[in-house]
Amino acid sequence: MPLLVWGSVALDSVETPTDKRDNVLGGSAVFFSYAASYFTSANLVGDVGEDWPAEHTALLQARKIDTRGLNVLRGEKTFRWRGKYLPNMNDRETLEVHLNVLGKFDPIIPAEYRSSRFVFLGNGSPIIQRKVLECMPKAELVVADTMDLWINIQRDELLELFKRIDGLVLNDSEARLLTGEENLVRAGHMVRELGPKFVVIKKGEHGAMFFGENETYVMPAYPTPDVIDPTGAGDSFAGGMMGYLAEQKKFDPQTLKTALAYGTLVASFTVEDFSLERLKRIERADLEARMREYRRMLSF
Amino acid sequence: MPLLVWGSVALDSVETPTDKRDNVLGGSAVFFSYAASYFTSANLVGDVGEDWPAEHTALLQARKIDTRGLNVLRGEKTFRWRGKYLPNMNDRETLEVHLNVLGKFDPIIPAEYRSSRFVFLGNGSPIIQRKVLECMPKAELVVADTMDLWINIQRDELLELFKRIDGLVLNDSEARLLTGEENLVRAGHMVRELGPKFVVIKKGEHGAMFFGENETYVMPAYPTPDVIDPTGAGDSFAGGMMGYLAEQKKFDPQTLKTALAYGTLVASFTVEDFSLERLKRIERADLEARMREYRRMLSF
Repeated sequence: MPLLVWGSVALDSVETPTDKRDNVLGGSAVFFSYAASYFTSANLVGDVGEDWPAEHTALLQARKIDTRGLNVLRGEKTFRWRGKYLPNMNDRETLEVHLNVLGKFDPIIPAEYRSSRFVFLGNGSPIIQRKVLECMPKAELVVADTMDLWINIQRDELLELFKRIDGLVLNDSEARLLTGEENLVRAGHMVRELGPKFVVIKKGEHGAMFFGENETYVMPAYPTPDVIDPTGAGDSFAGGMMGYLAEQKKFDPQTLKTALAYGTLVASFTVEDFSLERLKRIERADLEARMREYRRMLSF
Repeated sequence: MPLLVWGSVALDSVETPTDKRDNVLGGSAVFFSYAASYFTSANLVGDVGEDWPAEHTALLQARKIDTRGLNVLRGEKTFRWRGKYLPNMNDRETLEVHLNVLGKFDPIIPAEYRSSRFVFLGNGSPIIQRKVLECMPKAELVVADTMDLWINIQRDELLELFKRIDGLVLNDSEARLLTGEENLVRAGHMVRELGPKFVVIKKGEHGAMFFGENETYVMPAYPTPDVIDPTGAGDSFAGGMMGYLAEQKKFDPQTLKTALAYGTLVASFTVEDFSLERLKRIERADLEARMREYRRMLSF
């Protein structure tokens, strides 16, 4: 079942303690749709500028990602982000941001996408996230991401959005910021009480936590020794999760839990190289092999 | 099968963001033996001073902990620690330490303990840990804890000890300090290559990681919403783990993994109140109930 993702499409420049890359393919919609593509076809909505290299579009299309919603805006430039990871590889600082197309974004959504039943609203202004959502009258499962910026400057709009979505993914520091609660178990349920039916808190190298009305659980990250670049891990996690749900065409509690595990595993591959480099070298079978190992790891 | 633990016996004063306690029962050997007592009888070796309240000994004996090795040193005072937890409840600062008996410790081990087959060397100078070990000629499984202090000031002695033990438990920052490696998966295996057959890295609220020759796995912490006081969590974890192993009289990989899960669960109770208060209110059946929930949480 096709899955719609709206989010950023970016050219990232990344520095790690031992290496660096300039202007590589990135952005939440890119990582999300690529991660989802192991499970289902994804319809991507996002804007780029005239500086966008055509080979990036070809790379996405090669994974059967529908790029009719990837709009090239005349006279504009692509969103660019430059960041640097601290030695722990979990914390990072943003060195440069050029919003470019992202600053003037008003979603242009192809008519063919408007019957999507599975929808992911990538991190962005909740005002725009809501506009995207309003174009999806047939949505059955809507999951959104957010970040500290929107919690700080568009809190009311974000709280309004929460009443219209099924799931929210956010990271640990964002959950604490949103609720003022340090204990993540309490914070997760407090966020859920703000509207979403379920909440997933991403903890980076420490995995993810799930909060439903009747369920609380933790999924550890897959322990990879090869963390090269964590950029895109969170979006890959969401993409793997939503891709699996769209493939299964359901989202009951057990399917959701398995989806979180797949998200965890796609993310564990993403961090093993820069940009999409590692994901480009894997197929579904590699995910299944790691899934067998992960299940064994968690059984006793 | 009796389990020997050598470690500190303390009077702790603890401040959390919302509450505090003065001079409550604490120390690694206390938390360890109490946690182990749900599974097996523990033989405790540790020193206290004349200020030691007799009711603490009675409390340990009520759980069938053998306190013949709890030595009351004349003219001495019990080890005291005062600490304060930061709002995240994971990091803490030490406000006061009075080593007292701990500073002049030379282990006094009852003859009856010297045939112990399961041995835990609580955090302390590796020189003393080795002295304890030398009194245990029949030991089949020896696990030790350590801390940053010994890594910094008695590194050679610690490395020497590593060659004589089966398992080492330490926390994430200590593993990084010991190896200079930030990635915990790499750090864990690097520590293992220094001598221990297996290494357990404790990550507090984020759970624990296991490193064996052929196995690497992660156990998430049980997601309790009620973190009142994390003091003793690490020692309770080790006590639950070793207690279960001693009860099972074996330590093959599957038994070890189940033991780590029990350690995780005992620790999750410990943090739900100050000192031993929460553990005093549970029985083995409460651990089993939480174990069923934990297994369900990890299966999909």
